[in-house]
Amino acid sequence: MTAQTYHRSRPEEAVVQRVVADLQARFGNRAVTSQAVREQHGHTTTWLTNQPPDVVVFPHSTEEVAAIVRLCAEARMPVIPFGTGTSLEGHLNAPYGGVSVDTSMMKAVVAIHAEDLDCVVQPGITRKELNEQLRDTGLFFPIDPGADASLGGMVSTRASGTNAVRYGTMKDNTLSLTVVTPGGEIVKTGTRAKKSSAGYDLTRLFVGSEGTLGIVTEITLRLHGIPEAIAAGICPFPTLGSACEAVIVTIQSGLPVARIELLDDVQVRAVNAYSKLTLPVSPLLLLEFHGTEASVAEQSQRFGEIAAEYGGGPFEWATKAEERSRLWQARHDVYWASLGLRPGAKGLASDVCVPISRLAECLEETKRDIEASGLIAPIVGHVGDGNFHTGPLVMMDDPDEVARCEAFLHRLAERAIAMEGTCTGEHGVGQGKMKYLKAEHGQPALDLMRLLKRAIDPDDIMNPGKILAA
Amino acid sequence: MTAQTYHRSRPEEAVVQRVVADLQARFGNRAVTSQAVREQHGHTTTWLTNQPPDVVVFPHSTEEVAAIVRLCAEARMPVIPFGTGTSLEGHLNAPYGGVSVDTSMMKAVVAIHAEDLDCVVQPGITRKELNEQLRDTGLFFPIDPGADASLGGMVSTRASGTNAVRYGTMKDNTLSLTVVTPGGEIVKTGTRAKKSSAGYDLTRLFVGSEGTLGIVTEITLRLHGIPEAIAAGICPFPTLGSACEAVIVTIQSGLPVARIELLDDVQVRAVNAYSKLTLPVSPLLLLEFHGTEASVAEQSQRFGEIAAEYGGGPFEWATKAEERSRLWQARHDVYWASLGLRPGAKGLASDVCVPISRLAECLEETKRDIEASGLIAPIVGHVGDGNFHTGPLVMMDDPDEVARCEAFLHRLAERAIAMEGTCTGEHGVGQGKMKYLKAEHGQPALDLMRLLKRAIDPDDIMNPGKILAA
Repeated sequence: MTAQTYHRSRPEEAVVQRVVADLQARFGNRAVTSQAVREQHGHTTTWLTNQPPDVVVFPHSTEEVAAIVRLCAEARMPVIPFGTGTSLEGHLNAPYGGVSVDTSMMKAVVAIHAEDLDCVVQPGITRKELNEQLRDTGLFFPIDPGADASLGGMVSTRASGTNAVRYGTMKDNTLSLTVVTPGGEIVKTGTRAKKSSAGYDLTRLFVGSEGTLGIVTEITLRLHGIPEAIAAGICPFPTLGSACEAVIVTIQSGLPVARIELLDDVQVRAVNAYSKLTLPVSPLLLLEFHGTEASVAEQSQRFGEIAAEYGGGPFEWATKAEERSRLWQARHDVYWASLGLRPGAKGLASDVCVPISRLAECLEETKRDIEASGLIAPIVGHVGDGNFHTGPLVMMDDPDEVARCEAFLHRLAERAIAMEGTCTGEHGVGQGKMKYLKAEHGQPALDLMRLLKRAIDPDDIMNPGKILAA
Repeated sequence: MTAQTYHRSRPEEAVVQRVVADLQARFGNRAVTSQAVREQHGHTTTWLTNQPPDVVVFPHSTEEVAAIVRLCAEARMPVIPFGTGTSLEGHLNAPYGGVSVDTSMMKAVVAIHAEDLDCVVQPGITRKELNEQLRDTGLFFPIDPGADASLGGMVSTRASGTNAVRYGTMKDNTLSLTVVTPGGEIVKTGTRAKKSSAGYDLTRLFVGSEGTLGIVTEITLRLHGIPEAIAAGICPFPTLGSACEAVIVTIQSGLPVARIELLDDVQVRAVNAYSKLTLPVSPLLLLEFHGTEASVAEQSQRFGEIAAEYGGGPFEWATKAEERSRLWQARHDVYWASLGLRPGAKGLASDVCVPISRLAECLEETKRDIEASGLIAPIVGHVGDGNFHTGPLVMMDDPDEVARCEAFLHRLAERAIAMEGTCTGEHGVGQGKMKYLKAEHGQPALDLMRLLKRAIDPDDIMNPGKILAA
């Protein structure tokens, strides 16, 4: 199981020209080569360099995607799947050029099976668009990664977000997939049965594979009933440690919180300034409970008791929509409020995840590190899962500050890995986190991942230079 | 992605003798060749022929397993992992001889992380042994496949059982694994972080792979808090269809049932006779609710209302332990009660799973088929997941009856697959269900599974002749 090295390079210009011409012949004005569109598709929301593809194609169907891939396979031309462009680790860059397959014309809801709590969608639909279409069914799709990402992108990065603590991640909510393999074949990875023991788990092989093993062209998703009642609450704590203790006990006691989010003091200050709130400047937990009227009341009351035990409070909660919005205002404003802390700065995002028993320690060390590094980096966390984001605000024209931030992010990833955690809880590896995988997984696991990639994509045409670049 | 054919055969006798001698030299009396032990390890609880291995070895550690596998790899000797021998599809048979690796001396609980709701165990521990060891922590491991199976076996078959409807299957409750690969390398598939987007999902690659890709030697499991209160209930229904309707509405309304089991009239009659009960001979739902005192009462009441809507009732429920045992008596006695229906017969077990919207139709067609086939086959189902067992009671010395039963099981698998379901919800493929995989997955998916097997185990030493035999 020794890792071989790919010798990936950019195809020769004549090959590129031929593939582009063939695509234009077949797809007409759905094969676009304008610089603006290409650059928008070599999109990156980190500080990684934009690396545009040679052409962007907008297919309508699985069959069209298969045709594109077969054409590229012959020419060993890279294929990069594109959803909405909200990925954070350079997943969409085209370091060797190639064809960006934009799924934005594949937004159909193919079927809704309300009785089975599932639906079948094309990959280009976004989570908000999907929930809009589900509205009359009494069902919803819970995974909420912040951005209004495409479902195809969410499958590919194994996305999660604020309510993963209750509803799981894309790994748990993807029933099966249709995938176009690097050879242009169409594979259905599973049935609509809620569980199965019929062979290898091909669905989970593709969930989180970031387009490096194939292109997802249809997704069967698990849906959930819209809860009868929702309660939202907010609770300040004296320290990060006490907030984390309260989270641990909440989770351990089996309280089925739907969301439990942490904002640190810096983040609270930012939100107060941005939204003219008067929240106490201290660590804050924001909660949401789903259930019946009686059960959300019971859950809220229980959480209030736990919070009080750890010095938290007052715990304020409500079930009416406008009251809930007011209480959660702070969480909704996080992104813009952060940017407001330092006009002109770029906001980055880390996403380590550690066992919850190590969360307080990891958060506290990280806060000290932020201060020692002279950085401004508010913290917001999906703490029920042990997952948190730091959002360093960096002046990109200050090389010293950029270097300090890079060093900080590096230490943060290593810290999480040393605590039996992961460098990425939900954003994925892309180009940005490849350097941490060996420390996290060890060489044998990395070799096994490479073996899978080599077996499925021997010519390295699917999103080359991501996760496991040579 | 064309499927190549393995040319698997039994190693030459001299090779077998050499490997056995080497194992005996290294493991002494932990390498056993007596016929009784070998036959017990070529165990099968179906009507498949017993195919014993050449030798059974009892390792203590991951390192010892790696040493066994390296020795076998050199000799291209088959390696068959063994837990407790409760698998149902010939998973443990040794069609090409080889080494049975019995994990019953690997029962350690390596670590319990109560704050993180996880633990690390060796694969030989059984689920009851594990829960015994967890007792003082307030936590439990929920997956309950009926038999007191080993955790290694449960990982390997992607086991589930009665409370999967609430707690998921082994896929959802396995955080990470240590695996010895066919090359004898030791791979750690993940961290203890509750979620991760750091590369391919190696954990799920091995969960459900039935020992064909490697041997699981350590398992990190998710644990759950023992519920504060449990309610159990029992409710008769006029027809299978009305019981299924009530199940659909229960699941759809988001009622977090912990268990929802169906017994058909034949099964109820068997249980009445066996346990001297006086249950109405009609389809019966048995339920369990987990939560706080208030929430299990609320859940029970809600279910009662739903049941009444579909003509079910009276719904009787209780929270006291002895009352709950009485109500669930019927479910606990299913296995022995079934055998009592027809002394001298062998009890088989099918485990199809369909989308819940098709469950009534699938159950009703299956019941008609049982009757038309002149078989006796009680039905019990994990109906919240759309999964049910028929248990044909067959006189194995009657070739005509055996043939009728085989034909029935064949039609049942095809029926489930035609309804977008699976031939196996929880027992796995082994030798018995290989013939259904093409219909269920299609050739491209099967080719992809084969490609994975070939890449990871090019010499076909890991449990050959299972899932994907040539």
